[in-house]
Amino acid sequence: MKPLVLQSDFGLDDGAVSAMYGVAVGVDDALRVHDLTHNIPPYDIWEASYRLAQVVGYWPEGTVFVSVVDPGVGSDRLSVVARTTTGRLVVTPDNGTLTHLHAIFGIESMRRIDETINRREGSEHSYTFHGRDIYAFTGARLAAGVIGFDEVGPELELERLVTLQVEQPRIADGAALGTIDALDVRYGSLWTSIPRELFADLGLGHGQRVQLRVIRNGRVVHSNQMRYVPSFATVELGESLLYVNSLDRMAIAINRGSYARAFDLGTGNGWKVSLGRVA
Amino acid sequence: MKPLVLQSDFGLDDGAVSAMYGVAVGVDDALRVHDLTHNIPPYDIWEASYRLAQVVGYWPEGTVFVSVVDPGVGSDRLSVVARTTTGRLVVTPDNGTLTHLHAIFGIESMRRIDETINRREGSEHSYTFHGRDIYAFTGARLAAGVIGFDEVGPELELERLVTLQVEQPRIADGAALGTIDALDVRYGSLWTSIPRELFADLGLGHGQRVQLRVIRNGRVVHSNQMRYVPSFATVELGESLLYVNSLDRMAIAINRGSYARAFDLGTGNGWKVSLGRVA
Amino acid sequence: MKPLVLQSDFGLDDGAVSAMYGVAVGVDDALRVHDLTHNIPPYDIWEASYRLAQVVGYWPEGTVFVSVVDPGVGSDRLSVVARTTTGRLVVTPDNGTLTHLHAIFGIESMRRIDETINRREGSEHSYTFHGRDIYAFTGARLAAGVIGFDEVGPELELERLVTLQVEQPRIADGAALGTIDALDVRYGSLWTSIPRELFADLGLGHGQRVQLRVIRNGRVVHSNQMRYVPSFATVELGESLLYVNSLDRMAIAINRGSYARAFDLGTGNGWKVSLGRVA
Repeated sequence: MKPLVLQSDFGLDDGAVSAMYGVAVGVDDALRVHDLTHNIPPYDIWEASYRLAQVVGYWPEGTVFVSVVDPGVGSDRLSVVARTTTGRLVVTPDNGTLTHLHAIFGIESMRRIDETINRREGSEHSYTFHGRDIYAFTGARLAAGVIGFDEVGPELELERLVTLQVEQPRIADGAALGTIDALDVRYGSLWTSIPRELFADLGLGHGQRVQLRVIRNGRVVHSNQMRYVPSFATVELGESLLYVNSLDRMAIAINRGSYARAFDLGTGNGWKVSLGRVA
Repeated sequence: MKPLVLQSDFGLDDGAVSAMYGVAVGVDDALRVHDLTHNIPPYDIWEASYRLAQVVGYWPEGTVFVSVVDPGVGSDRLSVVARTTTGRLVVTPDNGTLTHLHAIFGIESMRRIDETINRREGSEHSYTFHGRDIYAFTGARLAAGVIGFDEVGPELELERLVTLQVEQPRIADGAALGTIDALDVRYGSLWTSIPRELFADLGLGHGQRVQLRVIRNGRVVHSNQMRYVPSFATVELGESLLYVNSLDRMAIAINRGSYARAFDLGTGNGWKVSLGRVA
Repeated sequence: MKPLVLQSDFGLDDGAVSAMYGVAVGVDDALRVHDLTHNIPPYDIWEASYRLAQVVGYWPEGTVFVSVVDPGVGSDRLSVVARTTTGRLVVTPDNGTLTHLHAIFGIESMRRIDETINRREGSEHSYTFHGRDIYAFTGARLAAGVIGFDEVGPELELERLVTLQVEQPRIADGAALGTIDALDVRYGSLWTSIPRELFADLGLGHGQRVQLRVIRNGRVVHSNQMRYVPSFATVELGESLLYVNSLDRMAIAINRGSYARAFDLGTGNGWKVSLGRVA
């Protein structure tokens, strides 16, 4: 019996998530079902992909994730189960949700869900809620050991994995380059794609000042300097800081303020960041 | 041991739901407690009733639901446990919360909670939180098998069941008539009371155009035509559609938009819909 | 195996809470993890303290709580585990979160978390998410019985316990004096610090009128009269009332309205209330 962890853009205001739980518990009533989040903004595949990558590593090996942000439900997008190189399973529409997992941890194998076998009985007339009828059902059967990964359906070539465009973080001209991947919603921090270890190549230590630039369409839209510090407590209230976030990547914040709101910055592949030495 | 599923209008910002969980776990620490939703709008019995009907069928037989939307706490409204014809139990104030369950699945038996037995010890001076002191406590005891349905209290006549006014969906003048029962909050779809099977009597197939009318107080307040399709993916972005929702009833949406917000439509018995052939 | 109950100001929009769950389940996959709330307003230690006191008593003895509202993460504030006189454990930064628990139930013992032992493996470079790396990890180990309270780290003098200023409720000049401790967010009621038993000393019974005064900085900013009643159902819609809340303390509300919003009142030590006889 493995943990089953659900993610979606359904919110918690109606019964959709509870129906998924009910289907899972119906597969095996000893199953432990948990949430990643259900507040992914509607249809936001990038955010779903990022949140998966943020969290999977903190769950035990063998954990089964179900992620349903599925604007293409009813189209010919495939329903798949992917296995990461670190031994987690993800049940999801293959629409880009696996992008960050693949880039950061690596997907080692992927199978198409055979819906003639892996579909909740009696759901043949429902075309709009695969999250409940296929994904939660299949995820629960995997987590409960009713089926193994081999019994999901035919293996797919990894080359056909649908991925969103992601720029690899890199060093160029003495600066670390990446993108703003996400906002820490509650605190307004910018979470970049730049790993701590890549940033370390610049040779900047705690206490040193760093030059931040945010670039859209090739133009610098925001520029600032701040200290690289171990934690918020190191700087004054209202002071900006560069730190290592809980995903072991570089992040920018204002202590007790919202950096994102202060400067009206967004996320995604179009928001590039550069972190370098102060000239 | 059966699953225990909680619903309320308490929200998740304070400790009210957690106190209910604690009381349930205190009855038997092996109990599995889950949520339907706690974001029912305050005092909205109609919504509570609808969400129950939306979800109960996806949970295993024997599941115990506790629903607490209770504007009359402390009044002479009764505290009851109802058993559906499909073998689920619902612990709730008898204030209309059972309306849709009764109309759709049927309540076969109802008992008044004897509060001299089924009440958390030490809660005699609290008159405002029956959700914790009576409903969660009694639901947990039922789910854990500490008491059986027979031990809840005296049986009540089903005729005294409190129900909100609900219009039966029907065919008239070549159109299917019903009400707007709920909005799919996150996506803005209209969920009507018209079952797929009733709509099928019109003989309209996938791809055919349908005439929608929304009627308030006898006047048509909204009129539109759209195709009846299996899923959102069948239509263009921004196109309206008629489809079968996850409750196996007819629903209306705009692909990637909010139909409800676009046309300022509401829910409840006062919002009637007609679906018919295009003249 | 004891229940583990998590509280934070992380919200449920990203993966932070799920990461805490994953770490806990990784300690022992049989562990039952639950929530108090994760919607404490960011950095609001007072609210975290109050919500803990609101809820701990409804969970079984031995329950382990983890509370992470931690504006000082990375500073020299201590990480501790406290044991209440009623046998619950709380894992938290020692920053005032234990204030109401100590005042209402009493803390009998407190230990500093030895982070050389009680820290998730591989988290040495993360300075910003002790909630996951230290608190959830230590709480899970306590709840699962991997370590006992004695193995948390060295005992601390209770005198060093950090507490927010709290005024003791008392009787003076024939009135019960206290503070507005919290708002019942969803319904807008004022929850005062005045226990039912203290109020009883005034000799006022159900049905009698009570004089409410709200005082800021020594000035009366709000004054009203209302009946003391057992429940909302006793008064008219829109009528104000004084009642005993689910924490067994005096509370003020408008039936089906929001008292707090109606009169623009707040919470905390600066908001004093007086409940007395009508002159």
